[in-house]
Amino acid sequence: MPETTTARASAASRFASLDPLIAPRSIAVIGASGDATRIGGRPIAYMRAHGFKGTILPVNPNRPEVQGVKAFPSVADLPETPDVAIVAVPANLAVQAIEDLGRKGTKGAIVFTAGFAEVDEAGEREQDRMLAAARAHGMRLLGPNCLGAFDGRTGYYATFTASLDSGLPIPGRIAIASQSGAYGTHVFTIARNRGIGASLCVMTGNEGDVTVGDVIGWMAEHPDTDVIAAYVEGVREADSFLASLAAAKAAKKPVVLMKVGRSALGTAAAKSHTASIAGDDAVTEAVLNEFGVVRARTTEEMLDIAHTATRRIYPARNTLGVLTVSGGAGVLISDVAEQVGLPMPEMPKPAQARLKELVSFSATRNPVDATAQVSNDMTLITKFFGELEREGGYSSVLAFFSQVAASSRGPLLREKLAEVVQQFPDRLHVLSVITPPEITRNFESDGWIVHEDPTRAVVAIEAMGRFGAAFEAGPGLPPPTVPAVTLPATTPTEAEAKRLLAEAGIDSAPERACPTPAEAVAAAESFGFPVVMKILSPDILHKSEIGGVLLDVADAAGVRDGFATLLDRAKRAAPAARIEGVLVAKQLKGGVECILGIHRDPVFGPIAMFGLGGIFVEILKDVVFRRCPFGEDVAEQMIRSIKGAPLLLGARGRRPADVKALARMLARLSVFAHQAGPRLASIDLNPVFAMPEGEGAFAADAVVEIG
Amino acid sequence: MPETTTARASAASRFASLDPLIAPRSIAVIGASGDATRIGGRPIAYMRAHGFKGTILPVNPNRPEVQGVKAFPSVADLPETPDVAIVAVPANLAVQAIEDLGRKGTKGAIVFTAGFAEVDEAGEREQDRMLAAARAHGMRLLGPNCLGAFDGRTGYYATFTASLDSGLPIPGRIAIASQSGAYGTHVFTIARNRGIGASLCVMTGNEGDVTVGDVIGWMAEHPDTDVIAAYVEGVREADSFLASLAAAKAAKKPVVLMKVGRSALGTAAAKSHTASIAGDDAVTEAVLNEFGVVRARTTEEMLDIAHTATRRIYPARNTLGVLTVSGGAGVLISDVAEQVGLPMPEMPKPAQARLKELVSFSATRNPVDATAQVSNDMTLITKFFGELEREGGYSSVLAFFSQVAASSRGPLLREKLAEVVQQFPDRLHVLSVITPPEITRNFESDGWIVHEDPTRAVVAIEAMGRFGAAFEAGPGLPPPTVPAVTLPATTPTEAEAKRLLAEAGIDSAPERACPTPAEAVAAAESFGFPVVMKILSPDILHKSEIGGVLLDVADAAGVRDGFATLLDRAKRAAPAARIEGVLVAKQLKGGVECILGIHRDPVFGPIAMFGLGGIFVEILKDVVFRRCPFGEDVAEQMIRSIKGAPLLLGARGRRPADVKALARMLARLSVFAHQAGPRLASIDLNPVFAMPEGEGAFAADAVVEIG
Repeated sequence: MPETTTARASAASRFASLDPLIAPRSIAVIGASGDATRIGGRPIAYMRAHGFKGTILPVNPNRPEVQGVKAFPSVADLPETPDVAIVAVPANLAVQAIEDLGRKGTKGAIVFTAGFAEVDEAGEREQDRMLAAARAHGMRLLGPNCLGAFDGRTGYYATFTASLDSGLPIPGRIAIASQSGAYGTHVFTIARNRGIGASLCVMTGNEGDVTVGDVIGWMAEHPDTDVIAAYVEGVREADSFLASLAAAKAAKKPVVLMKVGRSALGTAAAKSHTASIAGDDAVTEAVLNEFGVVRARTTEEMLDIAHTATRRIYPARNTLGVLTVSGGAGVLISDVAEQVGLPMPEMPKPAQARLKELVSFSATRNPVDATAQVSNDMTLITKFFGELEREGGYSSVLAFFSQVAASSRGPLLREKLAEVVQQFPDRLHVLSVITPPEITRNFESDGWIVHEDPTRAVVAIEAMGRFGAAFEAGPGLPPPTVPAVTLPATTPTEAEAKRLLAEAGIDSAPERACPTPAEAVAAAESFGFPVVMKILSPDILHKSEIGGVLLDVADAAGVRDGFATLLDRAKRAAPAARIEGVLVAKQLKGGVECILGIHRDPVFGPIAMFGLGGIFVEILKDVVFRRCPFGEDVAEQMIRSIKGAPLLLGARGRRPADVKALARMLARLSVFAHQAGPRLASIDLNPVFAMPEGEGAFAADAVVEIG
Repeated sequence: MPETTTARASAASRFASLDPLIAPRSIAVIGASGDATRIGGRPIAYMRAHGFKGTILPVNPNRPEVQGVKAFPSVADLPETPDVAIVAVPANLAVQAIEDLGRKGTKGAIVFTAGFAEVDEAGEREQDRMLAAARAHGMRLLGPNCLGAFDGRTGYYATFTASLDSGLPIPGRIAIASQSGAYGTHVFTIARNRGIGASLCVMTGNEGDVTVGDVIGWMAEHPDTDVIAAYVEGVREADSFLASLAAAKAAKKPVVLMKVGRSALGTAAAKSHTASIAGDDAVTEAVLNEFGVVRARTTEEMLDIAHTATRRIYPARNTLGVLTVSGGAGVLISDVAEQVGLPMPEMPKPAQARLKELVSFSATRNPVDATAQVSNDMTLITKFFGELEREGGYSSVLAFFSQVAASSRGPLLREKLAEVVQQFPDRLHVLSVITPPEITRNFESDGWIVHEDPTRAVVAIEAMGRFGAAFEAGPGLPPPTVPAVTLPATTPTEAEAKRLLAEAGIDSAPERACPTPAEAVAAAESFGFPVVMKILSPDILHKSEIGGVLLDVADAAGVRDGFATLLDRAKRAAPAARIEGVLVAKQLKGGVECILGIHRDPVFGPIAMFGLGGIFVEILKDVVFRRCPFGEDVAEQMIRSIKGAPLLLGARGRRPADVKALARMLARLSVFAHQAGPRLASIDLNPVFAMPEGEGAFAADAVVEIG
């Protein structure tokens, strides 16, 4: 396949500047070596051996030719401007090489050289100098300290990985984007050994310039890529990452992503490994969910899902029909399907009756157990599948055939299974079978995806549905409009915070700031008892810690006593605090306690959190996150997604809470946080009372922190 | 290896009667066929081809010899009494064959023949007749409708599975016990293809007589088996299952078990597949935990764990040290370790300093990232492992080496890694590497376990610690003694139930049965207000459903009103109910609401449940189960194991609850239930208030249901 097929769809895209790095027509190698095992030698050896059709231009001051290719003493001496240059010289020469290339007009450099930001601060400064040189010439830079890029279909091997010694990529439409070179080649090698077609692989190393986000974006627009498998340790920069995920979603290209550093341990390890901000894992998870990216837990799962996705069947409403020759495997598959939330509706009764007529001992509900009878009579296969797909109407079908030996019933089985795909080409057909690689290839060329292990097959099938749902989802509701937000200069009092939020339509429980006991009594009487009383001071942020909150104040006398008590406590705990009086609020009864919050993520900006109050947040961490801003539909999905949601939805005879009002509050809060800009450090609405349906939702406390 | 090595350790064991079925010296084949592909032909062909050293005795009325072996027209004509006989005749002849074999004195039969209990009720009756015939002669019977048994080491192949056509078992000390023939051979085939040594495989089919429990027990005592991999759809009979797990634990032989039918879907599928009682999955889980059995979620996981267990290193306090050449893999491994709860303590600081001296860019915390430097200088390997194992003191070590090609640095790496095992032979050494099978075999023969995927490696390593903890655990505290339990004839009232439980030392909140309002007021005043009032009737079991419970009754007038209200409600809701008055109880304040319960499992008898009350049980299903009876130590482990346990243990400044008292109550309840016998259907103590430390635990309601 000539390299021109790798041209991108739209040169106007923000990712077009990566073209020279990933799909060049000419490549210079700075520090070219005659030794095919050295980092400056491997790329030349690979490209010469494996049919790169572009021009290779070795640069070496000491040799007229390198590995049989005419070499040039310096960049300036090159007879043409290369699209891209590999930089494989020692660190102290790398900046100069970039400068030389820039002057020559080269628009891309792949810097293998290590010893920069990954080492120490001096290295970081040197890396910054190199980037400045590249930017000055409008050059994109992959690395430094990276393993480069390759595409087996074009013979382009701008990499020095030794993993190619044990075999070349299998041609295919999966592309691998990885921050880690070791991990990128690990995945590539496993794919190759499993016979999975992944031709293109780009590894970003230190990400001085080009990030894994840029690479995903380029792949999203690459006509020869259908599926993107990405490995990420930390996202450095939100814009290109978000743009790339949006581009992939728009192009309906699945992204299956492995993000390590989930755990406290993992984050510690990530930090000792790279300088990247690993970020809060829950935030990453929320961003991935937003774009329908499927997160893989293991390398095997990433490849299982990517491989299954190459069939390009993504059912938005995925259901699973199972045909098995082993009852036990059917049970196992049912267990996994339920666990991952993949529905397996029962077969219609008339179809079940027909199956019973075919094989009287068969189980017909779904899983359909055709029993070992199908080995004796292979015409049963098309009959069983016919009922399953036509009558069951499943979007995905998993067939468990245990083992197929090379010799025995293989050819006839192949023929029957091929017929099934021809008859139902819009369904996803997955086969779980133990069989030699050549038979696997046959089944797959007929349109089946083969996974030996039925559990892994189910997990991969479920992921196709998540892709489908994301691809089909419309833009959703726009975030609500709220008036322009003007933050105060410093962290406001609770009352000021609530006023500020009220302007955005975020309601609090009725309350009044009361400078005197008499005003407090009047306020309480106007709200009705019981009331809550809180100390009012711009200098006391966390009131409950100093005993500054009184609940269940039942009458006027209680209000007068409470006023004195709160002032007394405040004076003892914080003698220097300015006291403005007491806040009297209606005490809400009968609502469900929730918590709504905002915190600023260093990469992704303001992030909204929703959870149920009290023990749910404290002990069970039953919360959900989302990048701001978002609409009410997304807010409602968030609310419904937590484990404790039944409490809000009217579980066990409870009155349902006003989820609509809660969703409106959450969406407005997200817009407020988005508009407030970077000075907003955090917001805590805790508790918020979600009142019974139709009665609204009210914040009973609000802290708005200015950073 | 001669078959005599498969003799069992103790002929006195309850599992000794399986000897003829699994390790016979002579075998008759009833329905022997000259066609090596028929079910009566395969066993003879396999055993002749693969060196069975015992006697094969074909029985066929029509032929003087079968596959070159002298045949006999009938069982009666056999020249000797075979240890075991394969029955491969049609269903209508099978019972007679068993009868004939019994008369001959044969003590074991393996019945391949299908068409019995798995088909219909007539088949079930026929199966019962066959079993009666076997029992009359003291014969054990495997099947019917089973795939039989085989042991590759002795050439014993009493099976007709075609999966042996594609290869024989690899010699090894893993044994497979499976209820399903299709699944058993599936696992065996995957093990063989992966190069995992599993010689022995027994499949129990319909389990007319011999159950998978019996087989596990036999394997636990088999000197040539170290590790047992079992596949279970449903446990039919508790005694042999429990005895077998106890035997395996006593012999320190790990059992890794796959039990399908976890899900509602799976259970439906299981029922349509076999007639076995799938049982409550949570109960099975509890029983497996009790004996330290590790439950595998997938076939791959089962084999990963079984294979890792063949090293026979089971660290009771397992810690993981990681050496990697890829930072990314280190992060990934840390994530998985945290997720599965495998500790990765940090390396001691002085050792970290020494590692930094060896490789200045290395990460030294744990995971230790030795970087690609180790490829350049292999002496670093022994140095790094030396620090890791000597100074880190980890019981398990995982090394991630990405890829090792056949040609390159393989031999030197092998040498260095072999040294590591020699130096630290008591540690579990696991290698995650992509490499050809022959190199894997080399590493494994040197004492390493190889798992290509690092995630799967971590999961398997963690399981070794669970085995170790179970093997090391002492017998624990004996269940507490409680006085003999005499259940009433019918379901007792709440007050009677509480009296009954009080005799076993299970405390309720102070309360008194009060036939009149005056007595109710007197009782309330003696307890102090507030009090709880409940209707008292042997005919009203679920009082709250009819409004029969009043909380927060604050004074004498309230008690008088409440008395009238409750009687009125009871009369309206249940006019025929006998009303004995009202129960007045002290209302407990400041305790944590829990729920303690008992239900009778049809297989395993009384099962205790513990959970936190309210939403924890209702919505989060945060409960734990255990077979009765058990001691206070087990009860306390149960209490501490639930997700909400921090609520009881004093999270976030709460006063810790009286967990000791709660554990005492739970253990006593388990003994009560055990002693009560099968007439006890269930007990509900809901709520139980766990009061602050030192103040006890009290049931506020009790329902004891007589079945």
